[in-house]
Amino acid sequence: MTTHIVVMNCNTSEPMTEAIGAHARAAAREGTRISALRPSWGPESAEGNYDSFVTAAAVLDRLHTLDFPFDALVMAGFGEHGREGARELLDVPVIDITEAAAQFAMLLGRSYGVVTTLSRAVGQIEDSLRLAGLFERCAGVVAAELGVLELEEDSAAAAVVAASRAVLDRGAEVLVLGCAGMTRLASALAQQVDVPVVDGVAAAVKLAESLVDLGLTTSKHGSYARPREKRRPGWPISPTPGGQPRQR
Amino acid sequence: MTTHIVVMNCNTSEPMTEAIGAHARAAAREGTRISALRPSWGPESAEGNYDSFVTAAAVLDRLHTLDFPFDALVMAGFGEHGREGARELLDVPVIDITEAAAQFAMLLGRSYGVVTTLSRAVGQIEDSLRLAGLFERCAGVVAAELGVLELEEDSAAAAVVAASRAVLDRGAEVLVLGCAGMTRLASALAQQVDVPVVDGVAAAVKLAESLVDLGLTTSKHGSYARPREKRRPGWPISPTPGGQPRQR
Amino acid sequence: MTTHIVVMNCNTSEPMTEAIGAHARAAAREGTRISALRPSWGPESAEGNYDSFVTAAAVLDRLHTLDFPFDALVMAGFGEHGREGARELLDVPVIDITEAAAQFAMLLGRSYGVVTTLSRAVGQIEDSLRLAGLFERCAGVVAAELGVLELEEDSAAAAVVAASRAVLDRGAEVLVLGCAGMTRLASALAQQVDVPVVDGVAAAVKLAESLVDLGLTTSKHGSYARPREKRRPGWPISPTPGGQPRQR
Amino acid sequence: MTTHIVVMNCNTSEPMTEAIGAHARAAAREGTRISALRPSWGPESAEGNYDSFVTAAAVLDRLHTLDFPFDALVMAGFGEHGREGARELLDVPVIDITEAAAQFAMLLGRSYGVVTTLSRAVGQIEDSLRLAGLFERCAGVVAAELGVLELEEDSAAAAVVAASRAVLDRGAEVLVLGCAGMTRLASALAQQVDVPVVDGVAAAVKLAESLVDLGLTTSKHGSYARPREKRRPGWPISPTPGGQPRQR
Amino acid sequence: MTTHIVVMNCNTSEPMTEAIGAHARAAAREGTRISALRPSWGPESAEGNYDSFVTAAAVLDRLHTLDFPFDALVMAGFGEHGREGARELLDVPVIDITEAAAQFAMLLGRSYGVVTTLSRAVGQIEDSLRLAGLFERCAGVVAAELGVLELEEDSAAAAVVAASRAVLDRGAEVLVLGCAGMTRLASALAQQVDVPVVDGVAAAVKLAESLVDLGLTTSKHGSYARPREKRRPGWPISPTPGGQPRQR
Amino acid sequence: MTTHIVVMNCNTSEPMTEAIGAHARAAAREGTRISALRPSWGPESAEGNYDSFVTAAAVLDRLHTLDFPFDALVMAGFGEHGREGARELLDVPVIDITEAAAQFAMLLGRSYGVVTTLSRAVGQIEDSLRLAGLFERCAGVVAAELGVLELEEDSAAAAVVAASRAVLDRGAEVLVLGCAGMTRLASALAQQVDVPVVDGVAAAVKLAESLVDLGLTTSKHGSYARPREKRRPGWPISPTPGGQPRQR
Repeated sequence: MTTHIVVMNCNTSEPMTEAIGAHARAAAREGTRISALRPSWGPESAEGNYDSFVTAAAVLDRLHTLDFPFDALVMAGFGEHGREGARELLDVPVIDITEAAAQFAMLLGRSYGVVTTLSRAVGQIEDSLRLAGLFERCAGVVAAELGVLELEEDSAAAAVVAASRAVLDRGAEVLVLGCAGMTRLASALAQQVDVPVVDGVAAAVKLAESLVDLGLTTSKHGSYARPREKRRPGWPISPTPGGQPRQR
Repeated sequence: MTTHIVVMNCNTSEPMTEAIGAHARAAAREGTRISALRPSWGPESAEGNYDSFVTAAAVLDRLHTLDFPFDALVMAGFGEHGREGARELLDVPVIDITEAAAQFAMLLGRSYGVVTTLSRAVGQIEDSLRLAGLFERCAGVVAAELGVLELEEDSAAAAVVAASRAVLDRGAEVLVLGCAGMTRLASALAQQVDVPVVDGVAAAVKLAESLVDLGLTTSKHGSYARPREKRRPGWPISPTPGGQPRQR
Repeated sequence: MTTHIVVMNCNTSEPMTEAIGAHARAAAREGTRISALRPSWGPESAEGNYDSFVTAAAVLDRLHTLDFPFDALVMAGFGEHGREGARELLDVPVIDITEAAAQFAMLLGRSYGVVTTLSRAVGQIEDSLRLAGLFERCAGVVAAELGVLELEEDSAAAAVVAASRAVLDRGAEVLVLGCAGMTRLASALAQQVDVPVVDGVAAAVKLAESLVDLGLTTSKHGSYARPREKRRPGWPISPTPGGQPRQR
Repeated sequence: MTTHIVVMNCNTSEPMTEAIGAHARAAAREGTRISALRPSWGPESAEGNYDSFVTAAAVLDRLHTLDFPFDALVMAGFGEHGREGARELLDVPVIDITEAAAQFAMLLGRSYGVVTTLSRAVGQIEDSLRLAGLFERCAGVVAAELGVLELEEDSAAAAVVAASRAVLDRGAEVLVLGCAGMTRLASALAQQVDVPVVDGVAAAVKLAESLVDLGLTTSKHGSYARPREKRRPGWPISPTPGGQPRQR
Repeated sequence: MTTHIVVMNCNTSEPMTEAIGAHARAAAREGTRISALRPSWGPESAEGNYDSFVTAAAVLDRLHTLDFPFDALVMAGFGEHGREGARELLDVPVIDITEAAAQFAMLLGRSYGVVTTLSRAVGQIEDSLRLAGLFERCAGVVAAELGVLELEEDSAAAAVVAASRAVLDRGAEVLVLGCAGMTRLASALAQQVDVPVVDGVAAAVKLAESLVDLGLTTSKHGSYARPREKRRPGWPISPTPGGQPRQR
Repeated sequence: MTTHIVVMNCNTSEPMTEAIGAHARAAAREGTRISALRPSWGPESAEGNYDSFVTAAAVLDRLHTLDFPFDALVMAGFGEHGREGARELLDVPVIDITEAAAQFAMLLGRSYGVVTTLSRAVGQIEDSLRLAGLFERCAGVVAAELGVLELEEDSAAAAVVAASRAVLDRGAEVLVLGCAGMTRLASALAQQVDVPVVDGVAAAVKLAESLVDLGLTTSKHGSYARPREKRRPGWPISPTPGGQPRQR
């Protein structure tokens, strides 16, 4: 039976959404279907808390429009807000690429380092890992000082390699790519630094497949219980026929 | 000179917004003007992460419509998301009532306890305090098992007193009211438990006045730098003439 | 291409090894081959640090006898010592079921609880999770007060359910089975407690498949570099023709 | 009604006491009366634990001589011992400038740094913040390597600026002045480093005013219960007519 | 050669000082000389932070009067303030009985519990252990709800046994007596609870002997550098001919 | 009466065992007898987790052959595994030199640093200290990048001094020698760096003497209860007439 995974970009950039989808498909096994989606409103790139909180709501809004059955959700914004909200709304597993990347990295070395885009995001990523309970083995988060959309430029690779070396010097034994837009740099990076390089999108797809295989779903006991029924004027933003996401 | 403080409710309930405003005014000194506002869309009460992430964006959206000069923002949702985003968007001080209440409590006793509404919110409040760096002296967060809108009912007081006693048994020496809607119960509670009871709205108003008096504003160096200029299709949601909040 | 996973029981009980193997095969996808093995010497069950350190060396000894190519190692002793040693010896991924179970549980709820056999093992399991950097979201480790070999008895189920309820009362939202011998109780347990129940053997098999799929291997930079060449008189204990494990 | 705040220097330097008083008055609002006092014995400057423990007792001794009604106590020794003792002795709020500065700083940036006098005090300040539960967001404590009494010299400003830059490099987003004697350097410093600079004396005065306004007093439940009645031969040291501080 | 250890009671009770001295002598080996001393002013018992800060200065004051050569100082107030100050003043080893007891306990079990006098002291003891870096393996501090001077009463034993059982229930595997006045109850307690019972005075005497044997002294590099020379009007309180303690 | 301490080297190098024995004897007081032993199989030096887990079992195996009464066990492998297993097997005190060195260091300065051999061992030593609850005051673990057996070479001293300076720069106030083989360098090192230098073997011998003097033994309540009786085919490895260690 096909496993259908929704991979949700947090920003509204269509090229980035397509790239994330292609990358997710490359990681998926035979029999997994990937739907790479993006919110219908919000920033073209998430760089900081302001953007991140906007994307969190935009992603929740988009989830309400999903009118097809799916088995798992991958949230493809590294260090971005919102995963706990999606876990309330959905019963199927919700995998944040931040958590996925950190988990895989922790299996491969005693400590890991994150290479991200801008230094303004360093604290936000640390907080995301801390709340996920995955920060203790993090040797550092280092910024390449590139905007998300500058990652496409030719000079990006050198900046990412330099940042990677900086975090290895702090004791990291495995590298985590701290932005879904960095994926295309992964293999070149791994060759230059000679440590495993973990990409969160790929890791999250594998975790989604795994949890679906084992029949595991989100706990509805406690923090992630379904949202209470109540009046929410003007919400969701987008026109949503059925109103609720249609999970399998 | 008048200090103008915007007190922003996170939910869309007008009666609760008015109550919060009245309470903020009671705490303000002479010469402080309070504007109690609420988002133009979103849930009538925030109870859990799903609601909370929606309110975070709704509050940011509402901030874009502020077309009058103001000196500080009080975010009046206890344990709710979004404060870091508002701190990026604004230069004036942004005071989260969660932080304000915890800070005042920590000055009055060695440890404090939080009484909140529903147990589903306990983890979220703990995380909010943890990210604020104010969790270490928290003896516990205990739920009275009342929905936000049930706080108005007569039986609410007894449930809140019972929850307060439970958190004192865990070692709390000061109580924090973990919901802006609990304010009207504060004085009755203080009489029954004989420890200081801190209300976040009042504390936040005093902190806002204090920071304005000292001329202190949000650091724009690092995490709370202004949002980058970029395309954000469909955002803000609400029609906003000027587009940017007009701070003093 | 077939993925070949060695699932290594830590004790010398043949029935338990067979049961672990059957369970691993049930979790594996098509195309995965499971070899369930056990050490050639050591305790029939590991219950405490003394046993655990003996099994750690016995497992390393057994690894030296593996004369066939394999792609990943699953270490099937919950809370037992030795994973870091195996990660030095091998290049292929090494998955400890303790880590695997905790990781999956953390994706499904905000906190998890572990149900284990004897209270003497509680501290050891906590330490294993702490060193893995996965303890922060653990709400507690509770013992059913059953020896490993008593898990086969009819009365075991009731004791495990009671311990599970105790750890849910401490705030756990997901349950982790803290012993490879508990697997057969999993589905009955899940029905009674209505939260996800994660079994480490199944989780570890899925993680092994995933890491192999992505071509990720153990970092040889830092803590898990290969053991230095040196004289080790009398070691390995077991006669080992080739001397080194033959990984793919 | 006038709010009367006692601002207690920890050392016996009269010029420093006067400077602290002037600074407190500049921060106070209209209607606040400041009494700047100092102990009647002890070191002229507190630089290290030995001095600090002497000043802690000297301050407690001095409190026994206060024969006028007052509303709050500000303890104006940064990182110095004794606040918990004063909180037992008094019912009115007791504000330590260490805590006050850290709290205000944490509202203005994600992390703060402290600039202090001598490196021998770094550990002591860290401990003071740790015990106050306010250390987690501290990016570092850096010494300008100036004695307390050398802060008056012309060269002091450059050393303080250099230390400030060092702590910003460690990730601080807000600066805290780690010595009551540094106040006169604050505005020059803020211009040079372009981040908010928080002075503990000013912050503590505002917090004292705020707590008095809200009618909040020290919890007498638990750690800060009044000292037990007992024989204390030779104590207090100073002749004290009434024997107990006369709070409002 | 004789090792001369000064054992300093923190309070001014002569009977308690004598009892502490007798106990220290019972723990000392042949060739160790014990001088049991007490401050010349201050409370007859230390119960809370107010008392504790007074005793800290009184002990430092008393150290200035020591006009004979000695090899080590034992500070015999459990959980009391001042050890860091004595370490600055002296070059010889300074052993706090709080630290000594916790260290010995941690060698004998995975976790330890403290039984103390009054619940008001619980937080203070936790802080003392936390600052000493010895709190992590502490399973709890439990009060018998007896004043220091009530420990002599017949009913004290039962209260101490009950508190001991409470802390064993929290997971402690070793007991620490949290008051120098509890020593006479130690052997009866050990019989009843069947776990090791560690007394801080005895432990500190052995550590003092050990450090002296190995020629180890307090580091003068950093936090415990000697106090700076400066004016300290009115200090020390007690008439001190030589002015400085005369260590060997 | 004679106190008989077994000092167990973790590796099989006879010269190193003899050196450790000589050093232990130099630290022992009159009336203490030292038996310096080594395992009968295993690596000649322990450098990393693989070696360390082998030595843990080899040490446990060797303990089974002890057919003479002894009063305490010193485990002389710095940062090596196995102490918890020995504590289960034995009733007499078991002192790990890692713990002993850290404890003594923490009495002499506010923080300590460890100088060790290879950087691959840094994480392992940190974990050993963390599990012992003694890591919080550790300013760092720095490697001299020398193999254990290279410590005998003339150039070793310079590398150890350089590493010591590096860890002092990180804030250490006391040095700990992170390898039993470094002992001969201790006095030269102390002269060059002017801070106390603590050697774990000497510290452990003093702690063993102290615990024996006070009649304190390992808690058998909880984690260190005796190993359960059970079948352990092929274990112990070495021929053991009596089968159990013969403690006094």
